[in-house]
Amino acid sequence: MARSLGRLLKGFRSLISPPAMRTQLSYPTACVSVRTMVALPSLFSSKPRDFSLPNSSWGSEMMRLYEHYNSQCEVETEGGETQRGPWQRLPSYNRSLKYATGGVYLKEQRCVCIFQAGHLLEGPPGHVHGGAIATMIDTVTGTHATILSGPVMTANLNVNYRSPIPLGSTVLIESTLDTQEGRKIFISCKVTSNNGSKLHTEATALFLSINVSHLLGGG
Amino acid sequence: MARSLGRLLKGFRSLISPPAMRTQLSYPTACVSVRTMVALPSLFSSKPRDFSLPNSSWGSEMMRLYEHYNSQCEVETEGGETQRGPWQRLPSYNRSLKYATGGVYLKEQRCVCIFQAGHLLEGPPGHVHGGAIATMIDTVTGTHATILSGPVMTANLNVNYRSPIPLGSTVLIESTLDTQEGRKIFISCKVTSNNGSKLHTEATALFLSINVSHLLGGG
Repeated sequence: MARSLGRLLKGFRSLISPPAMRTQLSYPTACVSVRTMVALPSLFSSKPRDFSLPNSSWGSEMMRLYEHYNSQCEVETEGGETQRGPWQRLPSYNRSLKYATGGVYLKEQRCVCIFQAGHLLEGPPGHVHGGAIATMIDTVTGTHATILSGPVMTANLNVNYRSPIPLGSTVLIESTLDTQEGRKIFISCKVTSNNGSKLHTEATALFLSINVSHLLGGG
Repeated sequence: MARSLGRLLKGFRSLISPPAMRTQLSYPTACVSVRTMVALPSLFSSKPRDFSLPNSSWGSEMMRLYEHYNSQCEVETEGGETQRGPWQRLPSYNRSLKYATGGVYLKEQRCVCIFQAGHLLEGPPGHVHGGAIATMIDTVTGTHATILSGPVMTANLNVNYRSPIPLGSTVLIESTLDTQEGRKIFISCKVTSNNGSKLHTEATALFLSINVSHLLGGG
């Protein structure tokens, strides 16, 4: 599997190592002519690109929710000045939710992701695959845990599938911090219809803070 | 996400509806000349193709395990005749485990899948993403449940990540039927190193038998 699942998943690494580092490693500059190097910024830019912006695959509900949350990231004061609002938008280059989502928004101990699954994520006829839902939950809660306390690893993921998610529908994936105990971070998550009225999936996740150098050293 | 994840996941549907039906639906025969129609069998064959066969991306451990299980699918009698062995190989067109695996093998109440994750499934640096592991577990246990009692939906998936899986390593994903109670099928699953000595992941899964027509009708 997974050229594009890979695209989604490998972004997780960018929480820890900057994309620029990978670009350097995979691009032998010694082989590049001066003329090509001039063209590099457009082809191999190390400047991060935010992939969670509107594109032609988004449905109207994706757009509506995107605008709903975006409008709360900045508010206007009485004096006509703009200042930071209650929600904060996390651009896709800070985390692994690229391509498939309308952004992740952070507010106090809550994190919300707008998600619309296409037909390639089909599991049961006409509905999203349970593994794809688990992947999204792991990614949103893992992003949340990482923001709260740095690099983490998933220790447990317990997913209850209450109602299947129709392909193409826009859902909200919302994670909430339950508690932190030493290295442990307990997070709850629910997937609901776009207005929150229908519960599709509930989950709990346990993450452990890790020392990334340990992992890289194979310790 | 997910052109290729989609390839993996959409195969789940082929457990229920034959691929030929989808080919017909997506191919407007009215626009096809006689000459093109003659060429159809090679380009748009409705004959299922088994994707879980050795290819250049497989490592030596994948090949060894593939041969290990394959050799137990047929045994030779004293009279020199071949007969069915203790394991049964499930070709990929019967289920959703395409492209990424060395086949799924069935033996009594056990089902085993040989799996080697490439770099595109990276989560934590150098290791497989928790969501990809959950997806594989959901798929293997779901395939197993479907073989045991027809179409099912995942109701619960509880995954404990014991030890991260290094990218490129070959692991065994083994599911075992725990019990069946009416519409409920309880299955356990573990992911181990190729010789079974190291436990990477443990999980339990609960599936519910479903009436697919119900799902298709949106009931």
